[in-house]
Amino acid sequence: MRNILIIGAGRSASSLIQYLLKKSDQENLHLTIADLSIELAQRKTNNHKNATAIALDIFDENQRKIEIQKADIVISMLPAHLHIEIARDCIVYKKHMVTASYVSDAMQELDAAAKENNLIFMNEIGLDPGIDHMSAMKVIDEIREKDGKVILFESFCGGLVAPESDTNLWNYKFTWAPRNVVLAGQGGAAKFIQEGTYKYIPYHKLFRRTEFMEVEGYGRFEGYANRDSLKYRSVYGLDDALTLYRGTIRRVGFSKAWNMFVQLGMTDDTYVIDNSETISYREFTNLFLPYHPTDSVEIKLRLSLGIEQDDIMWDKLLELDILNSKKIVGLKNATPAQILEKILTDSWTLQPNDKDMIVMYHKFGFEINGVQKQIDSKMVCIGEDQTYTAMAKTVGLPVAMATLQILNGNITTPGVQLPINKEVYLPILKELEEYGVIFNEKEMPYLGYNPDKVRG
Amino acid sequence: MRNILIIGAGRSASSLIQYLLKKSDQENLHLTIADLSIELAQRKTNNHKNATAIALDIFDENQRKIEIQKADIVISMLPAHLHIEIARDCIVYKKHMVTASYVSDAMQELDAAAKENNLIFMNEIGLDPGIDHMSAMKVIDEIREKDGKVILFESFCGGLVAPESDTNLWNYKFTWAPRNVVLAGQGGAAKFIQEGTYKYIPYHKLFRRTEFMEVEGYGRFEGYANRDSLKYRSVYGLDDALTLYRGTIRRVGFSKAWNMFVQLGMTDDTYVIDNSETISYREFTNLFLPYHPTDSVEIKLRLSLGIEQDDIMWDKLLELDILNSKKIVGLKNATPAQILEKILTDSWTLQPNDKDMIVMYHKFGFEINGVQKQIDSKMVCIGEDQTYTAMAKTVGLPVAMATLQILNGNITTPGVQLPINKEVYLPILKELEEYGVIFNEKEMPYLGYNPDKVRG
Repeated sequence: MRNILIIGAGRSASSLIQYLLKKSDQENLHLTIADLSIELAQRKTNNHKNATAIALDIFDENQRKIEIQKADIVISMLPAHLHIEIARDCIVYKKHMVTASYVSDAMQELDAAAKENNLIFMNEIGLDPGIDHMSAMKVIDEIREKDGKVILFESFCGGLVAPESDTNLWNYKFTWAPRNVVLAGQGGAAKFIQEGTYKYIPYHKLFRRTEFMEVEGYGRFEGYANRDSLKYRSVYGLDDALTLYRGTIRRVGFSKAWNMFVQLGMTDDTYVIDNSETISYREFTNLFLPYHPTDSVEIKLRLSLGIEQDDIMWDKLLELDILNSKKIVGLKNATPAQILEKILTDSWTLQPNDKDMIVMYHKFGFEINGVQKQIDSKMVCIGEDQTYTAMAKTVGLPVAMATLQILNGNITTPGVQLPINKEVYLPILKELEEYGVIFNEKEMPYLGYNPDKVRG
Repeated sequence: MRNILIIGAGRSASSLIQYLLKKSDQENLHLTIADLSIELAQRKTNNHKNATAIALDIFDENQRKIEIQKADIVISMLPAHLHIEIARDCIVYKKHMVTASYVSDAMQELDAAAKENNLIFMNEIGLDPGIDHMSAMKVIDEIREKDGKVILFESFCGGLVAPESDTNLWNYKFTWAPRNVVLAGQGGAAKFIQEGTYKYIPYHKLFRRTEFMEVEGYGRFEGYANRDSLKYRSVYGLDDALTLYRGTIRRVGFSKAWNMFVQLGMTDDTYVIDNSETISYREFTNLFLPYHPTDSVEIKLRLSLGIEQDDIMWDKLLELDILNSKKIVGLKNATPAQILEKILTDSWTLQPNDKDMIVMYHKFGFEINGVQKQIDSKMVCIGEDQTYTAMAKTVGLPVAMATLQILNGNITTPGVQLPINKEVYLPILKELEEYGVIFNEKEMPYLGYNPDKVRG
């Protein structure tokens, strides 16, 4: 039996474990599922004979090392900042490692040691980062093989609620860490290039500079820019591309409404509200509005945000109950962002039968033999239930598949890796299709930003 | 002769040195004027027989200690973060010390040692902080002596250009560190209380929530909120006041226009612009506007900021030349804020004959025997020229006066002090009047925010 040590048995590990257990007899696999909570680990084993649950505190160096020594390969599904000690042990005990997280500087420093020991440290092989890398590099490599030159690359991804569970005015529910949704876009201007010109959007304008996109069968979506669209410019070999834009997908209208919170200052996470525990939702809202002895919070809010009588924005706010004077925040020393997260969680939590949905959208502009063309590549994945969510599938399955490919000697390039090479993305993208993760690619004439090549 | 060591001979030291030299014969004073630049120090001595210029690098511990030992009292006019080593030496060699800077945590830690050695470390005795403390505490103490209770305190201060030198559409020129003007209000929400309710304004709304104020003979001004209006709540004994608001004064219309830069993202100091050295002012502006192949930067800028055809906002922008494609930024690895500072400096630098102006405005609401009253206290000070500016006078004179009062044994309370006690503020405010720093106090019925006491 080949022993796979899976550290972290949280939500994103469900589909990953299910996949490996299904293959375990045929592939001769034994899974050790390790979590701080033995109950959580046990539940994830599904009483399968090829799985063992263990309680593991990764800060217990001794136990961590013992478990890593027993493994043939290690998967870490812990939060990104907790990978590094595991990775260092993997070097010492000569084990391959797989994560779905961004490569940290500390992880990157292990590249030489991993190569020396012929070890594969595969990272960023979840959804985003992960499936985005693979599905983009597939098209980019195909264009290059035909001697084409990529001139535009746009890439969007979003975790949303499935159409059948889309029951509120915001067309949104939390399908992943709510805190990340509240803080999205903060910490600096969004940066990208359009037609060779650098563009910067400050946070307070980010949600008003969206792009629309159509996904056949699912209608219209919008995207707002990620912090750094140039992050993978060199990794993808796109240093000469004139347009690079990466963004987050929401349903049309979400960003305009979200911008109300940004404008009010409710997404700020840098200071604590006095008496946050005892104030009502209504008092919280009034903190951000000018004082007036008689005007209502309602009229001040409408004036401050420019919401006319019949504007749907108003109903979106009311749906969240932010003017309720009976509901108490109940959080000690909370920042505005933490209070907003609490208010939103009241309304945006998935109900037991709700399903989630992942949408990914790439747009490639390229030139072949003097002709400009475009490929749009789109993927929609809907969750099965609240365990095997679209998020769990798209994050966990590529991790599981890569693990098996490494064990079986099909992925061979050693070092700290991203899934941008054919030996990785071709078999995994193909296998993902069996699980409903299917990219629909369509070629068309180049529609980009500037089809007439006017300077501006 | 009593030896006064003045460290730092920059702009703010001019009036301070002039004052002390004038009194030097009568008061038996000798000034040692120390600066990194001996030329600068020499110029400030004015060839006066009672002054010696020396070159001093305050990081040269040996020389610093020798000079401090020779002094009877030490004035530090260096940037605030450079005071602390001097202060520690002053403890060792038992010298009084005076600064115009905010008390840092490190300075506050010396309080016990200063008291033990019966030393006076007088801080925050410039303009703001300084004259604001003194002029406010005078009125607050007077109200208390009549058994009155302060219910409202608002305080505004601004460094502006004198009416006769007010020649641009912004009614503003740089009379102090331009960088601080560009970064004003950044780093968190502005916080204050109005009628017992906490209020928070996020940075991107700060310049749209101004208050107007009238100063007889000088017309209308506006104020935007400082970061923390509650900073001196306890120091002033105003824990029960319902309204506390501190702000910065500008001419009416400045804030609305400044907000254009905030909205565009041009005041951001947290990231560096690619190729900042070679781009033109026009390209800089276009970085913050959406890409379009044919639309002009002009039309995009108007649309983005909502500037109609006949809006004076447009002329304010044109006056700064931000659409000029010939003017090159010429700054390596510059942030948007640094580039904006450069652009503004082209237009807002004082001309050789320009004069500056300081405006201070306090509003006190109080209750005496069940009657609500109000006192408005206003001060305007106009500079003489570009050496003896209003800023140099209002920052330097209180420092000089406090120094002499300490030497003469009239200020006696030891420890790390602010000028909030009568023994300090009464004689200094009185003497400042001889130099044109005159507060005009007027009592009237309470006009505050909520004269009808309606709840809201």
